[in-house]
Amino acid sequence: MKATAGVVDVGEFEFDCGETVPSLELAYETYGEFTGDNAVLVCHALTGSAHVANRRLSDGEAPETGGQARAWWNDIVGSGKAVDTAEYYVVCVNVPGSCYGSTGPASENPETGEPYGTEFPPVTVTDWTRAQRRALNELGVGRLHAVIGGSVGGMNVLEWGKQYPDDVRRLVPVATAARLDPQCLAIDGIARRAITTDPNWNGGDYYGQDHPNDGLALARQLGHVMYLSKASMEKKFGRRAAGRDAARDAFPSDPAADFFPYRDVESYLDYQADKFVERFDANSYLYLTRAMDNYDLSAGYDSDAGALAAFEGEALVVSFTGDWHFTSEQAESLASAFRDADVPVAHHVVESDHGHDAFLVEPENVGPPVEDFLADGVDGRAVTDTATGGDDDGAEFAPVHTSLFS
Amino acid sequence: MKATAGVVDVGEFEFDCGETVPSLELAYETYGEFTGDNAVLVCHALTGSAHVANRRLSDGEAPETGGQARAWWNDIVGSGKAVDTAEYYVVCVNVPGSCYGSTGPASENPETGEPYGTEFPPVTVTDWTRAQRRALNELGVGRLHAVIGGSVGGMNVLEWGKQYPDDVRRLVPVATAARLDPQCLAIDGIARRAITTDPNWNGGDYYGQDHPNDGLALARQLGHVMYLSKASMEKKFGRRAAGRDAARDAFPSDPAADFFPYRDVESYLDYQADKFVERFDANSYLYLTRAMDNYDLSAGYDSDAGALAAFEGEALVVSFTGDWHFTSEQAESLASAFRDADVPVAHHVVESDHGHDAFLVEPENVGPPVEDFLADGVDGRAVTDTATGGDDDGAEFAPVHTSLFS
Repeated sequence: MKATAGVVDVGEFEFDCGETVPSLELAYETYGEFTGDNAVLVCHALTGSAHVANRRLSDGEAPETGGQARAWWNDIVGSGKAVDTAEYYVVCVNVPGSCYGSTGPASENPETGEPYGTEFPPVTVTDWTRAQRRALNELGVGRLHAVIGGSVGGMNVLEWGKQYPDDVRRLVPVATAARLDPQCLAIDGIARRAITTDPNWNGGDYYGQDHPNDGLALARQLGHVMYLSKASMEKKFGRRAAGRDAARDAFPSDPAADFFPYRDVESYLDYQADKFVERFDANSYLYLTRAMDNYDLSAGYDSDAGALAAFEGEALVVSFTGDWHFTSEQAESLASAFRDADVPVAHHVVESDHGHDAFLVEPENVGPPVEDFLADGVDGRAVTDTATGGDDDGAEFAPVHTSLFS
Repeated sequence: MKATAGVVDVGEFEFDCGETVPSLELAYETYGEFTGDNAVLVCHALTGSAHVANRRLSDGEAPETGGQARAWWNDIVGSGKAVDTAEYYVVCVNVPGSCYGSTGPASENPETGEPYGTEFPPVTVTDWTRAQRRALNELGVGRLHAVIGGSVGGMNVLEWGKQYPDDVRRLVPVATAARLDPQCLAIDGIARRAITTDPNWNGGDYYGQDHPNDGLALARQLGHVMYLSKASMEKKFGRRAAGRDAARDAFPSDPAADFFPYRDVESYLDYQADKFVERFDANSYLYLTRAMDNYDLSAGYDSDAGALAAFEGEALVVSFTGDWHFTSEQAESLASAFRDADVPVAHHVVESDHGHDAFLVEPENVGPPVEDFLADGVDGRAVTDTATGGDDDGAEFAPVHTSLFS
């Protein structure tokens, strides 16, 4: 498989908020060969990078995992996989505001020679989409066969259909919604407060000093709770105590804690948080969660359907019954908006215990409908729809997606 | 209504962990007249006090709300109410480790003349129960007509049936479970980490200095998310922006925040957190969540039923379909344990959107079954049961309590 990684400078960029940066750099990766009409843009999730899939490195190229331990959708994207790089030219662009090669708060502000910090303009999903459009222009890609992405990456997909309805044939929003619900807004707000009340955050000006790792660790731990479900946590951890070698001492804890078991679930969260603070920038976490929280498909229109009305392609909405971050109910509401906009759409519901993480960890359930939709649209063989498919007619849908937390 | 408030010193007390304090003081309140067999012990929740209900103050007595803004179960307990103080002698005892008058981390250690801080012994629900037994002895109360309580107070109720099966006639565990699930363990662990990584926590030695209010605020906000449901948050806040006078500036936030709305849900959580840190001690929060997380009804037995086997009275388990902190599934499992132990039990499920808070804010649904159960046991008129009641036979129960998060 041919693959490339690079950074494209799209020049001056004006953000939604009206502020500009003189030079916006965007890190990207591509997989497969561009034939003119086979481009698929993959949109990454909150803390993802452009590094979607494993690839052979060019001679002398430094190993590049976008700062991540591994490619984040390697089970879905690759040669012979659901998004087949032997057929499609896959592009992923790290969003502005992130910290994986695209310009963001940790980047140097050319006007000062110092990191932007919180001088970096607020970013929105709209900004991400416009930035991707410009990156694709630089890469010589006009119309896209498809845009696909999960979680806030799914919001990014929706924004493509809204902002560039003529530029894309097929939309695949996965494990996403037209907007976050207030429970998730609350948790994101708490996560940001954890970062900004960490004294090391220092108003966002911490580069070259101690980073607000305690706050960022808490934020990440809250993220993990949102990505899992009661059922998956029961299965994964139960109430078991962690092994003897589990690192309870990574942060201060109450002496009374020694009387109680250090549980597997705490150990997991502590371990994940410690890994995360090594790879992610706290200011980026603030910026990107702001973008996610702020996203509302209907903004500027009188409804979600209104925002999608100009789109003339097809859409596949994929959701997971165990996902409480982005619920199947929200996905169904999104599918209804497509229907109301006369867009051919299928809402493919996956019965799953895995919570939000399902879109990453159940390639066997995500792959087939995605593969067939990319090839044949809503008529694809493995594509099911809540409105038309077998047992899942509209009337019977409610029970399926009320078991969100079990 | 006759009511009293006081502090009883039960002398030296050895905790579960083997450590002792030379003198354990327990704050209590009583409502109504004791007639010898009409005592009802009410167990408070995590951050509650002994101040269950409004009461007339004695001449010259300082207003006493146990540090809380108002009595926490005044809609349920009082003259002519579900727990009728014209009939029952109601007692509530603030648990050891708390900060509302009973000995805890903020109390003076008589050996040093300084606050205990984290030198205070770890406390367990078992300790709470033994301490309550001794406080009742001091008050001249032997056998109880009933023990009733919600949330971790419900665990306290279960522990009474396990530890003093001959001392209580009727148990009313409300919105509780035999043990927390790992999702809630995770969130409690994150809350504690928020406190202990606040530099002001200082290993628990912060009395007389700045308290770890930033960490405690985060912990409280996580609590609020657990006490509400998706549905109640949607109804209460939606995605609305807060009013102009909302105090966004109570803590540091990212400058980019100004571009985005300060939402009602954030404003609510920030306000609640600010109030809470004025009234609650951070070390107590660590101690009491440890007790809750650690509680396991079956500890020392081979099953929950085994732990309840010696109890010869009756039980009413009350749960709420919208509660994800303590779910209706967990309550049903608890009811099954009572059934397996041959204890007459009713599991009364309230259809509710309110989340865990329902046990506090839906007196119209909680009161009638509680009142009738106190009077007539499981045959009480307003008492329903999942195993026998109308539409809720065993086979049809599943759909009722799968809609936990909607």
